[in-house]
Amino acid sequence: MPTIVVDVMPKAELLDPQGKAVTGALSRLGVDAFSAVRIGKRFELTVEGEVDDDVLATARRIADEILSNAVIEDVVAVEVVE
Amino acid sequence: MPTIVVDVMPKAELLDPQGKAVTGALSRLGVDAFSAVRIGKRFELTVEGEVDDDVLATARRIADEILSNAVIEDVVAVEVVE
Repeated sequence: MPTIVVDVMPKAELLDPQGKAVTGALSRLGVDAFSAVRIGKRFELTVEGEVDDDVLATARRIADEILSNAVIEDVVAVEVVE
Repeated sequence: MPTIVVDVMPKAELLDPQGKAVTGALSRLGVDAFSAVRIGKRFELTVEGEVDDDVLATARRIADEILSNAVIEDVVAVEVVE
């Protein structure tokens, strides 16, 4: 069954406390390859049947209106997989 | 600066209460295009400098050991973007 993946990340200008905590933990554990970590959400929407333009438009709409909070988050991708 | 994206999802055989809640909300809102929603995490790791095999191996290792909980989650992707 086709799946639509929606990626939502905290806005770049906002502090991401979860990400900051992981960045700190990595550095305490001796992992210094990464200068920053940001943590967002990945939604997998299972579609029954075909993914047509209507379904994709609906996915984009709910990504903006329901799955993300536009005040603090950006929808960075809405894409069909499989 | 290159970014490594790590996608982590709840294991398929586990109930995903957050996803179930969103599935129910969508159906109550009249959106019936999606039969299921699962919610996972997306990590963006910022790399200073080049992404070589070592950095990618480190990313895979922390994805398995630190960023995900192997009991309840699967790492579904580790990929370089930009």
